Amino acid sequence: MSIKIQPEAIASLRGFEMPERLGFGTVMAPVMFRARFQDGRWSDGELLPYGPLALDPAAKVLHYAQSCFEGLKAYRYGDEGIGLFRPERNAARMAHSAQRLCMPPVPESLFMDAVNVVVAHCAGLVPGNSGESLYVRPFLMGTQPDLSVTASRAYEFYVIASPSEAYHPGNMRLWVEREDSRAAVGGTGDAKVGGNYAASLQSISRLKARGYDQSLWLNPGNRHTVDELSGMNFFAVMDGALHTPALNGSILEGVTRESLLTLARDAGLEVHERAIDIDDLLQLVASGTCTEAFACGTAAIVSPISELGDGEQRYRLAQAPGPVAMQLRTALLDIQEGRAEDRFGWMHLVQVASL
Amino acid sequence: MSIKIQPEAIASLRGFEMPERLGFGTVMAPVMFRARFQDGRWSDGELLPYGPLALDPAAKVLHYAQSCFEGLKAYRYGDEGIGLFRPERNAARMAHSAQRLCMPPVPESLFMDAVNVVVAHCAGLVPGNSGESLYVRPFLMGTQPDLSVTASRAYEFYVIASPSEAYHPGNMRLWVEREDSRAAVGGTGDAKVGGNYAASLQSISRLKARGYDQSLWLNPGNRHTVDELSGMNFFAVMDGALHTPALNGSILEGVTRESLLTLARDAGLEVHERAIDIDDLLQLVASGTCTEAFACGTAAIVSPISELGDGEQRYRLAQAPGPVAMQLRTALLDIQEGRAEDRFGWMHLVQVASL
Ligand SMILES: Cc1ncc(COP(=O)(O)O)c(C=O)c1O
Ligand SMILES: Cc1ncc(COP(=O)(O)O)c(C=O)c1O
Repeated sequence: MSIKIQPEAIASLRGFEMPERLGFGTVMAPVMFRARFQDGRWSDGELLPYGPLALDPAAKVLHYAQSCFEGLKAYRYGDEGIGLFRPERNAARMAHSAQRLCMPPVPESLFMDAVNVVVAHCAGLVPGNSGESLYVRPFLMGTQPDLSVTASRAYEFYVIASPSEAYHPGNMRLWVEREDSRAAVGGTGDAKVGGNYAASLQSISRLKARGYDQSLWLNPGNRHTVDELSGMNFFAVMDGALHTPALNGSILEGVTRESLLTLARDAGLEVHERAIDIDDLLQLVASGTCTEAFACGTAAIVSPISELGDGEQRYRLAQAPGPVAMQLRTALLDIQEGRAEDRFGWMHLVQVASL
Repeated sequence: MSIKIQPEAIASLRGFEMPERLGFGTVMAPVMFRARFQDGRWSDGELLPYGPLALDPAAKVLHYAQSCFEGLKAYRYGDEGIGLFRPERNAARMAHSAQRLCMPPVPESLFMDAVNVVVAHCAGLVPGNSGESLYVRPFLMGTQPDLSVTASRAYEFYVIASPSEAYHPGNMRLWVEREDSRAAVGGTGDAKVGGNYAASLQSISRLKARGYDQSLWLNPGNRHTVDELSGMNFFAVMDGALHTPALNGSILEGVTRESLLTLARDAGLEVHERAIDIDDLLQLVASGTCTEAFACGTAAIVSPISELGDGEQRYRLAQAPGPVAMQLRTALLDIQEGRAEDRFGWMHLVQVASL
């Protein structure tokens, strides 16, 4: 595919001034990638200045949430330039999400070219301190203006990016969500689609009012095994072994989750992917058998959990941060930031574009 | 609230030519209403020419599906002008949907003013044959550009409209959907939000490939009682009595459903709102006890169901259309189109605006 680089995109990059405070996902890079799908095929891609999209008021995405997205990070990688972490897994997951909503999957080559061109041009915006990164957000949406509940015939695929601080939620307090669900059995829980996040907002706002940080979602089918958090996967350490919910169709398969499992096995840790009953888990925390718990995801990397709240009951983890969380976090960040050898072939280097 | 009527909106109405073929939800009226919510309050509303919305690429609606919508119809009403059917129920349902996704509910007065101003100005676009109407689509969405999974701080509320043919799906063949779910228990099934419709698309495309017209959704909690269709509620007639699934949190409360229940009770029919087990239902169809079934909603009014398909099995309804469906359809349309007295105070008359 050929990508057209608009001169205005280069001009907006040259004129960009990095704000003092970054936050996470709030400062947007001044360029974006776009490709369109129509009549069964993809257009050439373009790198454009970041700016408002023109969407028909009847566009399917606005009414029927026909959209999916990804999230990955670009890091300063040693002296060599900019590194992406396992972007091909994001490409594959986005294809899976698209198919669940009857959208044309973005071909892997288009996904990779798009992410590459954005990162190559935004290399100067990748912050340099450990944990900081350029957060990259590809997304796909149905744009056909038509109010019938059918799949769109037209789509747009964008990649935007946000220079971001390390996202340190600190020690997190989780609220066991026993009422709401984020996705149904036979629903869209294993796809990264907007509806799951919309459904989560009510729980998030309730738990914040109670002083908690994140919802711990239970499986919507049985309502008593742990699924995940709103944007992270869940791990617990019991008697020194690592436990995480097995993929069951309603859990999003995190790239970080899979990477931590690989690193843990590689370090000789005992690892269990299994159904984790919430009541068992709470008992094991109370009895001290479960010593630590943590969540993981692209944004937060590895974040310790200090407490699980269930109704009026509070269950404190003995160690937060615990040694296993810290060991895995360090192992992962060392690879991502180029301090450790890339033994699993995870890093994808981006050639910096000259502006 | 004062509504600003842009001169360009009037000009676009004067210049509008009604196409020969309307379809349903594809021809858009040339004006739209917009109001904005920011810093905790609603702006004044405006009537604008219909045209593309400018949305930031990081707007919450595009990533996290923070949006909800409504659908209602304006009819030619006798000689008196234009009638809306129970619009205050749509206003209330939209407030409920908004709250489920942590959006500010559109105040009833704003909703009513907005729908009124659009319909008043589009009076010339309300087609005149029985069953034809101006389909009115209010929608609300989160527009704040920010990639964190939290509720938007800014919203836009629109009302668009589409002159539409009668939507006659004919005798519908329903596919009993045993795998997918449209919404979870504790999810958003009783709210009119985009994610439910996105989750339905896969089932819709599969059943069309099998020659069916609509999915019959089962309850996502028990997976063996009937909930509804993707955009309509479900009714069955057994031994002359009318049965419909009771509202259970995952069913959308249809305005048509409630109106048919009222009309049926008023006509002396025996009415049951209850959990309907799918296997029982299929047996009763096979044995001839369930003689007819139909679906109802704003778009399709009352539409007979001729067949239920479950895996390889097909269950044919004895009567399609059946007498109860036809009786209720006529009773409802007669009120909506002004041929029968408005005994329940359902019609809301709109003063036609001069252009
Ligand atoms: C629901 C959900 N679970 C888990 C994750 C973690 O996935 P990853 O490690 O690929 O970022 C995310 C974030 O992407 C998510 O949104
Ligand atoms: C899921 C769903 N169920 C039922 C209905 C019927 O509701 P109403 O009669 O208010 O149009 C609709 C359409 O609005 C719908 O989308």
